[in-house]
Order: sequence, then C-alpha cells, then structure tokens
Amino acid sequence: MTNEKNTTQRAVLPEPTLRRLPWYLAYVTLLDKLHVDNVSSTQISKELNVDASQIAKDLSFLNIKGKTRIGYDVHQLVKELTDFLGFKKKHNAIVIGAGSLGAALMNDKGLSQYGLNIVAGFDVNDAITGTMVADTPVYDMRELGDRLPEFNAQIAILTVPIEHSQAAANEVIACGIKAIWNFTPFRIKAPADIVIANTSIYSHLALIYNRMEGAKTK
Amino acid sequence: MTNEKNTTQRAVLPEPTLRRLPWYLAYVTLLDKLHVDNVSSTQISKELNVDASQIAKDLSFLNIKGKTRIGYDVHQLVKELTDFLGFKKKHNAIVIGAGSLGAALMNDKGLSQYGLNIVAGFDVNDAITGTMVADTPVYDMRELGDRLPEFNAQIAILTVPIEHSQAAANEVIACGIKAIWNFTPFRIKAPADIVIANTSIYSHLALIYNRMEGAKTK
Repeated sequence: MTNEKNTTQRAVLPEPTLRRLPWYLAYVTLLDKLHVDNVSSTQISKELNVDASQIAKDLSFLNIKGKTRIGYDVHQLVKELTDFLGFKKKHNAIVIGAGSLGAALMNDKGLSQYGLNIVAGFDVNDAITGTMVADTPVYDMRELGDRLPEFNAQIAILTVPIEHSQAAANEVIACGIKAIWNFTPFRIKAPADIVIANTSIYSHLALIYNRMEGAKTK
Repeated sequence: MTNEKNTTQRAVLPEPTLRRLPWYLAYVTLLDKLHVDNVSSTQISKELNVDASQIAKDLSFLNIKGKTRIGYDVHQLVKELTDFLGFKKKHNAIVIGAGSLGAALMNDKGLSQYGLNIVAGFDVNDAITGTMVADTPVYDMRELGDRLPEFNAQIAILTVPIEHSQAAANEVIACGIKAIWNFTPFRIKAPADIVIANTSIYSHLALIYNRMEGAKTK
C-alpha cells in the first residue's frame, strides 16, 4: 500500500489536470477562509464550470477521499492540493535575463508562496551584472557554469530577447539545469528529459485585443 | 473588396490560432533580424513543430499571401502579424491590486512593446495608494468609478488575492471595463460580452514541479 501511494503521488499527470488543480485550490482556499467545512464535486463544478465527474477524476490523483452526501473536507483538500502541487517545497531557480520582465519576476514575492525561490539572476548587460535586484545578485552570464553548483538550482526562468532564447536555453541545459520556464514567445528546442513550460504572457494580449475587436463588431 | 478585408481583420479567431500566431511572429522577427528574406510554411513548421498546413491556415486570416516555391516575405510577415495581433495599437489598461505581482507588471516595459499601456493602479492598501509605481500613480480602489473615465482604459489587469478576485472583477465591470486579464488562479464569472483572459503564472509552476518529479523517477 505504501508503494502504491508513492506511485500515485509521483505520477506524471495529464496537463489539463495540472491546469485545473490550481483552480480547485484557489476555490477551496477561499472556502477555507470563509470557514466552510465541506465541499462536494458538484459544488466545485457549479462554481468553476468543470464537469463534476472530471473534478472527481482529477482529485482521484490525490490521497483524499470525498464522503457520500458530505463531500470533501475543505481544510484537508487545501492541504493535500498544496502538497501535491509542490507549492510547499522550496525549488531554487535562476533568472536568465534580468531585464524588465526578469527583474519583475525577481521582485514578485508571490512566486515564493508557490515554492519558487529565485536565488540569482544572470545577464549579459554590464549595466545590470554586479547589481542586486530584490536582494538577489545578478551575475555575468559567463559565470553561469562556475556559479550554478553553489545555488543548487534546477529551474531556469528564461526572460531574454527572442534572438537569444535558444542559445540561452542550450547554455543552461549544458550547465545542468533540468527545467526551463520559458517566458519568451520563442519555441525553444530541448532534449526530451528537459522540462519546458511556456508562459508567453504577451501572447495572451493578442487574445484580449482580438476578442475586444470581435465584441465591438457584434 | 474593402469590406471583405475589414471583415477578415476583425474576425474572432480560434484561440489555438491566436496562441500560435505570436510563435510565428517571434520566429519571423528573428529571421528578419538575421536578414533572411523569405520563409516557407514548411520551414516554420520544422522550426516550431506545427503542421505546415495548419500554419498556412492560421496565416490565411492575415492579408498576406505566400509565393509558390519562395514562401512568405519575412519583413512583410513581421509587419502583418504585429498589426494583426494588435501589438502596434496602444491599449490603455489599469492594474487592480498593485501589490507584488501588480507592481511587477507595472514595472515591465515589455508590455508596452506589445501595445499595453498601463495608465494607473488601484489598491485598497493605504501603504500603496497615493504612491507611484514605475512612474504610474496608484489610487484608492474607492476612486475607481470617478477616475476611470479620465484614463480611457478598457482593460483591467487583475492581480488581487483570490478572495477579492470576483468582487474586484464585478467592480471593474460595473465601472465600464470591457476586458479582464486575470492573473489570479480564481475562475472569475462575468457577463458574456466581457473578455476574460486567464494567465495563472503560478499554476505553470505546478506543471514544472510535477514533470521534474516524473523525470526523476523514470
């Protein structure tokens, strides 16, 4: 049974499930703050517009069981989801490209609440290297290989101009980085064992602009 | 013919297309910088791992035609994509919740390069209201209704704690905001004519953590 439990926890989840679990967490965190004790998948379903059966399936990956006619214990669900999503553990990360967006992320204390600990920035710009951003040092990109071992970081946050995206990705991977959080709109290539998450925030603007135009002409 | 052109430009595009167009833009911008003159959909396909026929279909929404055996004019494609995606126009926006993430976005000059012009922040915290963040004033949330008309802003960037997400959304909509860029993991509800784009950056962390765990156990 212990083995089974571990296997479940480490399962590579479908991406849609991983996208939905944080929605559930946000909702049950709110319920917890409002001192609500129990929540059913039907209730979550109504609130988030996700099929109740899908919610039950998503939550089946966790070590939590709902009770018939009562539902899930809200407080326990918050705890299990937070643990399961890895938000409680500390994950060291470095920022590659400490310019506007990179520095903004270094300044965002919210990331640490979700388990991300930015330990250093790296940049090629002399005006930035050697400075501190949000109490975190910014080093010259050429020092990456030498400095990375001291930081115990496996995640690189990529916030460089698109023309440097692939080269920067190659470099961090060569230095031993295991996951790249790619904030550039460039589709970087990497070996299969490297985790890539694309968060192209600017491309969401295209969606907003297009939908606003569409709404106007309706 | 003029009418037809306008209809095409204002078409409400499928979300996957809107997600891919910025990838193409990033790639052809890079080619343009490298002084490459032409690019075929096959070439883009190889680089971005998207079907060539899909690329041709996506680009058919634009007023650009590829030439047989030559492909698209790179410089023209950059221009058309930038225009089409709305990155050249100026879109005024306000930030609701000028805390850590909100202030970070106000500091990110990259957003203005993609047509987003943050004109003001609003917050409920006395320690923040009345201050300037990145040369932009932060006002008391209670002033929203009075101040919004002077800003000519139709987009609200939502960076509040989850327990205030829905209330803040309701408030900006009541004041006349037409689009909400929701950075909270909370699934806000809004009338059908309000544009909602969800960018829950923290939920991407869950994906990274899970995939890293999965890679370890392989």
